[in-house]
Amino acid sequence: MSAILINGQSAEHISVLDRGFQYGDGVFETLRVSAGKPCHWAQHMARLSAGCQVLRISMPEPALLLSEAMSLCAGEVAAVLKIIITRGVGKRGYVPPAQAVPTRALSLSPAVVFPQMHYRDGVSVRVCDTRLAGNPTLAGIKHLNRLEQVLARAEWPEGEGSTQVAEGLMLDNNNNVIEGTMSNLFCVQEDEGGPVLKTPLLTHCGVKGITRENIINVAEAAGISVQETTLGLVDLYRSQELFLCNTLIGIWPVRQLEDQHFAVGPMTRRLSQALESLHD
Amino acid sequence: MSAILINGQSAEHISVLDRGFQYGDGVFETLRVSAGKPCHWAQHMARLSAGCQVLRISMPEPALLLSEAMSLCAGEVAAVLKIIITRGVGKRGYVPPAQAVPTRALSLSPAVVFPQMHYRDGVSVRVCDTRLAGNPTLAGIKHLNRLEQVLARAEWPEGEGSTQVAEGLMLDNNNNVIEGTMSNLFCVQEDEGGPVLKTPLLTHCGVKGITRENIINVAEAAGISVQETTLGLVDLYRSQELFLCNTLIGIWPVRQLEDQHFAVGPMTRRLSQALESLHD
Repeated sequence: MSAILINGQSAEHISVLDRGFQYGDGVFETLRVSAGKPCHWAQHMARLSAGCQVLRISMPEPALLLSEAMSLCAGEVAAVLKIIITRGVGKRGYVPPAQAVPTRALSLSPAVVFPQMHYRDGVSVRVCDTRLAGNPTLAGIKHLNRLEQVLARAEWPEGEGSTQVAEGLMLDNNNNVIEGTMSNLFCVQEDEGGPVLKTPLLTHCGVKGITRENIINVAEAAGISVQETTLGLVDLYRSQELFLCNTLIGIWPVRQLEDQHFAVGPMTRRLSQALESLHD
Repeated sequence: MSAILINGQSAEHISVLDRGFQYGDGVFETLRVSAGKPCHWAQHMARLSAGCQVLRISMPEPALLLSEAMSLCAGEVAAVLKIIITRGVGKRGYVPPAQAVPTRALSLSPAVVFPQMHYRDGVSVRVCDTRLAGNPTLAGIKHLNRLEQVLARAEWPEGEGSTQVAEGLMLDNNNNVIEGTMSNLFCVQEDEGGPVLKTPLLTHCGVKGITRENIINVAEAAGISVQETTLGLVDLYRSQELFLCNTLIGIWPVRQLEDQHFAVGPMTRRLSQALESLHD
């Protein structure tokens, strides 16, 4: 199972002059597909639209994207849908073409099945050497300039079994922890008034994940105090609980960060359940 | 005139699964073509190779690239050759494929003819709002993550005539001037011992241009003192001369930076002549 639609046509290639290829001039979304449908569609469209607005790319009609997505997802029990929107084909040079026609590339990949122990026992996480550079304009959106993530992910080999490192955390140039290479991060800290859920502030770099957003929403709805704030590594080491999230993995408890071990705690369990019961 | 070779074959499209399109996972070179040949080939290959090494992409044989370049350039009096090397096709996810086969895309575009007054009278330059984020690993190489340049170049419209802004300068997050969106920058300052040629240090961001390198070399060979150093806007405003350079433009004197005017000075003239007499 693998299928691609480019501008609505079944195809596997794009123009070498597409500005997505030339400059990474575009945005993307990765969606979980379940029972023939992409999940959390409206939220993904909202982020895609925000990204297009930042780059001043004319966002394709969500209804058009939905009809193309549905045709790819039809009959798929579980899969992954990636949507790439670029500024389209242009002449050589950085000047955005005045009459650009955006390219939309939708591709379906097999569902990824993660080990059950990732959820039950938690995952082992490392701290990457590669830093996330700050750019307030691009912060939050999911654009196609992903070399930092590629370099960070290349820092450790793919492993298997219980010693496997499942994710790497990335810091910014001020030593603030921002996110994982492919995930967002939360920690739980005991405060005077009870446990507080904290997640890095993403005003200078990082991607505002849909699952991150959903976790904040379900936590606040449950009366849990949530803070988007500046967090250093020392803050993580002092936390009671630590977990990672994204659209495909849901929530992974962290059982080990470098040499320090963490228990899979009650807040992580509670939010995992709340997230699963969310309507897609 | 427009021709493209992808992995040695005449083609216009690349796989949508190419990591150049998915992540900007690659490097590129823009070469001036003159009398049927790409200019400064060895220097461009050296930078391409350095970029591939940083990204751990297996660099194609320069002899293979040269034979492909020569077949595209044959009979071209003047043109522009762009060479893109990516990690190649991969599965979804940031992990670099173990058995990646790099993609090479060579494309020829028409030569760009710039107005004669750009060289005679100098150009008008603005200061961009978009900043260059620091990443020491990626600094100097010419990689495919070019959104900062796209955003910066989109800050002003294409103009014509004498009021035209020809280039925008980009600063880093520490307010140091680094380069233009598509060019490197030099300034001339009077020191106790005579005039000194200064250009921004590119250890944290920026692209180490081939023409920048050639200018440094011809200046040093002529006994001119050259410094790669930290420069703020105030240092530029205090300079006697200011000029921009890249492979396609050669040297453009700056006659105006924002509201301040500059004369086209003797050092700029001298280096322009020395550069023109360089063997390609």
